[in-house]
Amino acid sequence: MSTLRADFDAIAAIGRDPEGGWTRPAYGAGESEAHRWFAAAAEAAGLSVRQDAFGNSIARREGRPGTPAIAIGSHLDTVTRGGPFDGALGVLAGLEIARRVVPGPDDLALEIIAFRDEEGRFGALTGSRAMTGDLPADALSTMRDTDGTGLRSAMRDAGFPVDSPLAARRNLSELAAYLELHIEQGPVLETGGESIGIVTAIAGQKRLAVRFAGTAGHAGTTPMELRHDAFAAAAEFAVGFRDMIVKEGQGSARGTIGIVKTNPNQGNVIPSDVRIGLEIRDASAELLTLLAGRTVTIAAKTAKRHGVEVSHRLVYEAAPVPMAPRLVDLLEAQARAAGHASRRLLSGANHDAGILGAHIPAAMLFVPSRGGVSHTPEEHTDWHHIEAAVAVLEGCVRRLISAEHTI
Amino acid sequence: MSTLRADFDAIAAIGRDPEGGWTRPAYGAGESEAHRWFAAAAEAAGLSVRQDAFGNSIARREGRPGTPAIAIGSHLDTVTRGGPFDGALGVLAGLEIARRVVPGPDDLALEIIAFRDEEGRFGALTGSRAMTGDLPADALSTMRDTDGTGLRSAMRDAGFPVDSPLAARRNLSELAAYLELHIEQGPVLETGGESIGIVTAIAGQKRLAVRFAGTAGHAGTTPMELRHDAFAAAAEFAVGFRDMIVKEGQGSARGTIGIVKTNPNQGNVIPSDVRIGLEIRDASAELLTLLAGRTVTIAAKTAKRHGVEVSHRLVYEAAPVPMAPRLVDLLEAQARAAGHASRRLLSGANHDAGILGAHIPAAMLFVPSRGGVSHTPEEHTDWHHIEAAVAVLEGCVRRLISAEHTI
Repeated sequence: MSTLRADFDAIAAIGRDPEGGWTRPAYGAGESEAHRWFAAAAEAAGLSVRQDAFGNSIARREGRPGTPAIAIGSHLDTVTRGGPFDGALGVLAGLEIARRVVPGPDDLALEIIAFRDEEGRFGALTGSRAMTGDLPADALSTMRDTDGTGLRSAMRDAGFPVDSPLAARRNLSELAAYLELHIEQGPVLETGGESIGIVTAIAGQKRLAVRFAGTAGHAGTTPMELRHDAFAAAAEFAVGFRDMIVKEGQGSARGTIGIVKTNPNQGNVIPSDVRIGLEIRDASAELLTLLAGRTVTIAAKTAKRHGVEVSHRLVYEAAPVPMAPRLVDLLEAQARAAGHASRRLLSGANHDAGILGAHIPAAMLFVPSRGGVSHTPEEHTDWHHIEAAVAVLEGCVRRLISAEHTI
Repeated sequence: MSTLRADFDAIAAIGRDPEGGWTRPAYGAGESEAHRWFAAAAEAAGLSVRQDAFGNSIARREGRPGTPAIAIGSHLDTVTRGGPFDGALGVLAGLEIARRVVPGPDDLALEIIAFRDEEGRFGALTGSRAMTGDLPADALSTMRDTDGTGLRSAMRDAGFPVDSPLAARRNLSELAAYLELHIEQGPVLETGGESIGIVTAIAGQKRLAVRFAGTAGHAGTTPMELRHDAFAAAAEFAVGFRDMIVKEGQGSARGTIGIVKTNPNQGNVIPSDVRIGLEIRDASAELLTLLAGRTVTIAAKTAKRHGVEVSHRLVYEAAPVPMAPRLVDLLEAQARAAGHASRRLLSGANHDAGILGAHIPAAMLFVPSRGGVSHTPEEHTDWHHIEAAVAVLEGCVRRLISAEHTI
């Protein structure tokens, strides 16, 4: 474990932000330096390393020639002023396991993959989507960061000139399974006192924009019963939405109103217009559809009660991605055998495993996030949890490369 | 009535805004031109006209020497791109009545007053507060418009150099009563089908800033039961606040949440912080205090239920100003005698009558606002309502100057 700790410190020395935390944007200097460090460390451990056309680093130990690989991966980029664990931990855990586990002549191969742009400087999960062929056809010209820099030009500047979003697409039969260790980025494990979370699915989501349109009016001269108050309607809708998610969400669904824009937003004017941005996440596509429908019904009923207009549109949706049940069972059995407290949980956030998992068997292990926080410099996971999770993942990989466990 | 209509058209030719509506800011060219027009018209009708140190125009017909006056007034300034009725109508109604009513040798005097800066370029009701001595001691140096122009310099440029906010203070025993005709700026009369509203009081108000502080969290990774969602708390508070105002506001109180600021206002982040700006208005100081107290209690209980912090502060308050009961009765009797549909109502907005009324007997008549709107170019009142209200006011003035009705 001391090697992993040293590796962690080495990566954590890359991309320190003068304003605090770590800033390693995709295809920027910090991310590329981290990939160079990873390649050198993997080669030093005896792995062969290559970068694909999108700059994803793939370190490999061969098994029996021609067999597919068990892949362990995550990413080395960070959000702006993020923490040191998100992404890097999963890559380094893979590297540590590759040091310990050397496939025999009859085993499957082992790959450690560091993906590019998981955090979405250019649109989220770019590297893994490039590998699976899931990038949109116009990705190179349309994906831009918030400063307007295009994906194509950033990749060219980083040494990866590409002409097609399919340039890094891989024959996925080369991979037997994909495993990822990641920080939870939520409070569930810490609250429950478990060291290990076994992800059952990457949640799907639906994002809705809901607009309540009432009538502006003088706050002093308009009696309560003659108002068409867009915020009064929006607030009642928000209460109904939350209650509905809690009641009908089967304990797993999450519903969040993150965006609220009130117009004209003046103290003495009854709001004429409120725009709400909300999202619903769950592992079940059926439940997501049901909850989104109920949301629209609640909005319509609330608007009617307040004499205001309401409209909505679906601004984004992503299907849930279930993790491979036999991998989930294996991880759980390994954790139990090692005596570590674990629980099954839903990943509310998307991960590279959510991209790979739509094509090949995939699974994820979570370790607890102190205070449930991530994407800040305060992001932290205690090392004893990490040690436990790496050991469980190692045991799992040993079973898988020797095909003792059927995927 | 054709004279009043012609007067209205004359004032409406002043201060047309190229972008629509009327813009006659206080002490600006349009307001001053309207005052010059008023002075000329009043002199043409045989009144003597003066401007006080703050530029308020006072047109007077003497009655018995040494007697106080019955004053009719309103203002000639407008908001930016406002309508043609707000303020001007009340001044012109007074002028029309002064044409018709000439005090006899034993009568009280009659005054028509056009106040400056009612709309608050420099802080609201500046002219009437100057007349009653209610301006703060530092008004000349601290009152500024939104561009940073100070009251003192704007007044100097308009021809009114003053060194003291008390420069226009008047001995209010010179005025026996103050009457004002104004558009309602709300939907009550139109909804009720009445031509005339008789104001019973200018509402007092309390404005509160309420802040809910929760914990930001990933909308995907944080289960519903582990959230400290500031907007969920704020929405529930908003519903409770409105219900409470409706239930405990005795049918007269108005409560409005006009300002809502949500942080960080991102779709995938649970809101950490919501700031609400609300106001409560009513004619009863006791009820206002009760409702503000109930508001704070609801905020505290809601915050506790959601595990978030709440704080609040009183950012503004103004005491209610009751209209003189005997004047209210007289106006109502006149309206009834003339067969006009009328109703008593509360003025939720403040007016010059709210400033004068804190010192001398005052009363107000409202005429209906089409669609309840004002402060826009669409502001409109049908002329048959105006004719009715002017006739009622005229009858009232005749009774008052002859002292047939004791105030």
